[in-house]
Amino acid sequence: MMLLLLYLIAITAEAMTGALSAGRRGMDWFGVVLIACITALGGGSVRDVLLGHYPLTWVKHPEYLVLTSFAALLTIFIAPLMRHLRTLFLVLDALGLVAFTLIGCMTALEMGQGMLVASISGVITGVFGGILRDIFCNDIPLVFRRELYASVSFAAAWFYLGCVYFQVPAEQAMLLTLFGGFLLRLLAIRFHWEMPKFHYNDER
Amino acid sequence: MMLLLLYLIAITAEAMTGALSAGRRGMDWFGVVLIACITALGGGSVRDVLLGHYPLTWVKHPEYLVLTSFAALLTIFIAPLMRHLRTLFLVLDALGLVAFTLIGCMTALEMGQGMLVASISGVITGVFGGILRDIFCNDIPLVFRRELYASVSFAAAWFYLGCVYFQVPAEQAMLLTLFGGFLLRLLAIRFHWEMPKFHYNDER
Amino acid sequence: MMLLLLYLIAITAEAMTGALSAGRRGMDWFGVVLIACITALGGGSVRDVLLGHYPLTWVKHPEYLVLTSFAALLTIFIAPLMRHLRTLFLVLDALGLVAFTLIGCMTALEMGQGMLVASISGVITGVFGGILRDIFCNDIPLVFRRELYASVSFAAAWFYLGCVYFQVPAEQAMLLTLFGGFLLRLLAIRFHWEMPKFHYNDER
Repeated sequence: MMLLLLYLIAITAEAMTGALSAGRRGMDWFGVVLIACITALGGGSVRDVLLGHYPLTWVKHPEYLVLTSFAALLTIFIAPLMRHLRTLFLVLDALGLVAFTLIGCMTALEMGQGMLVASISGVITGVFGGILRDIFCNDIPLVFRRELYASVSFAAAWFYLGCVYFQVPAEQAMLLTLFGGFLLRLLAIRFHWEMPKFHYNDER
Repeated sequence: MMLLLLYLIAITAEAMTGALSAGRRGMDWFGVVLIACITALGGGSVRDVLLGHYPLTWVKHPEYLVLTSFAALLTIFIAPLMRHLRTLFLVLDALGLVAFTLIGCMTALEMGQGMLVASISGVITGVFGGILRDIFCNDIPLVFRRELYASVSFAAAWFYLGCVYFQVPAEQAMLLTLFGGFLLRLLAIRFHWEMPKFHYNDER
Repeated sequence: MMLLLLYLIAITAEAMTGALSAGRRGMDWFGVVLIACITALGGGSVRDVLLGHYPLTWVKHPEYLVLTSFAALLTIFIAPLMRHLRTLFLVLDALGLVAFTLIGCMTALEMGQGMLVASISGVITGVFGGILRDIFCNDIPLVFRRELYASVSFAAAWFYLGCVYFQVPAEQAMLLTLFGGFLLRLLAIRFHWEMPKFHYNDER
């Protein structure tokens, strides 16, 4: 199934971005592997824990942990190369974001949740891996300070739920969402589209 | 039911304080909404996950998420006003703290938990929203460095459990706890009552 | 049962190290107690939540919370002494690390999980208390920047699972793992054995 393939590519790519963040903090190899696994599988885990959807993906398929750990260790060795792969990773990350979002929506719908919870489930799956990565590396989550990211996930979720609502065939709904979300994210990066920021200062 | 009304007021107020914290970090609108929802509903979610009490409140009532998100967006627009509403928010926050604590105790008791777990459940519901807000904004949780706050939640929890133990009618037990806890918190703010701090330094 | 005794010693020691971290941040007594409980019981809680293993240890045995809270308050009073107890705590912490890891593996195996998930469960139980402590105190987790720590947990987990696989009698498997892991950790401290670090810089 194409979505599974996309998922495997996505967790591999996310794991490698996680490994790089850990490297920026000079963590040891164990930390690198942990941050990589959290970045790749954390979003789905948070979703499953919040929805009470057991067993978690990586508990059911521990081989995914092997894949992400391996990707993390690989990253350590090809780190000098990574600088030149930025664009590739932005593309893979964009694919991953939308794929994760889709999977999150589907999981919630399969559990019989409504549209609203399904969209939240999609966004959580899409963005929480990166949020956890930044919390574990003691950063303020980047997700909210970059070009459209969480918003792409949100838009993709509602676009997909719209397709489901209007009974677009599953196949096409998926492909349309993937393509549309992917395109939106790339355009956002290319033209630096950003959500407006909220700056608040008080006498504190 | 009065408690529900209090609850709605409380999550709205907490959402707005969360939005302000996100604004202090210059997050984008999406981050503001997320931090607001986490601040308002995070305490109850942590409690439910730890006690295995599914579905979570916002999964059962996704409309609460709409309310908190709306409150967050509203905050962005009335931000300049907020400076003059400090006192109002301290009061609403005090009400929220005690209402959350009550709800946390009741939830645990309904699950058949003992007094000790019920009190923990109350405190977690009362203070964890604020703790998560500070972690997501990369601050050291304020909760433990301000006037009596967690301690008010703790005291309210045990006062309520005492009422339950001595079979005070539910209605009165609730009202007494709400009033007592609310008063204690306001007095603590007014007279800067604080828990003693523990300062430790080593050669590190 | 010896493992229970070890467990009680371990959570007490971990609670005290948590209390000291809170003291370094000048938290109030309530924060000290919370950080202590999270440090001592957080690893097991994360494991139980991720595996859907309810009720959590401290929900089933709230008396453990009393023990860790008491240990935290005690720490505040004997703080000046703590400086001279460093070695003792390193030893207790090493014992705790291995005992937690063992318990984590056993819990997963009892749930019918495979070896891979069991080893993860062991490591999570062993190291996550410390990770949560550092996140709540707004530090980058120390675990990944010190002498072998998570790796000791990982090695102990796989050593124990190896014993289980080759049907070494439970008693001996436990004792061998405890002794081996304990020794490995002490040697790592003594000779400053460290995991290689991964340092990555980009133009960011």
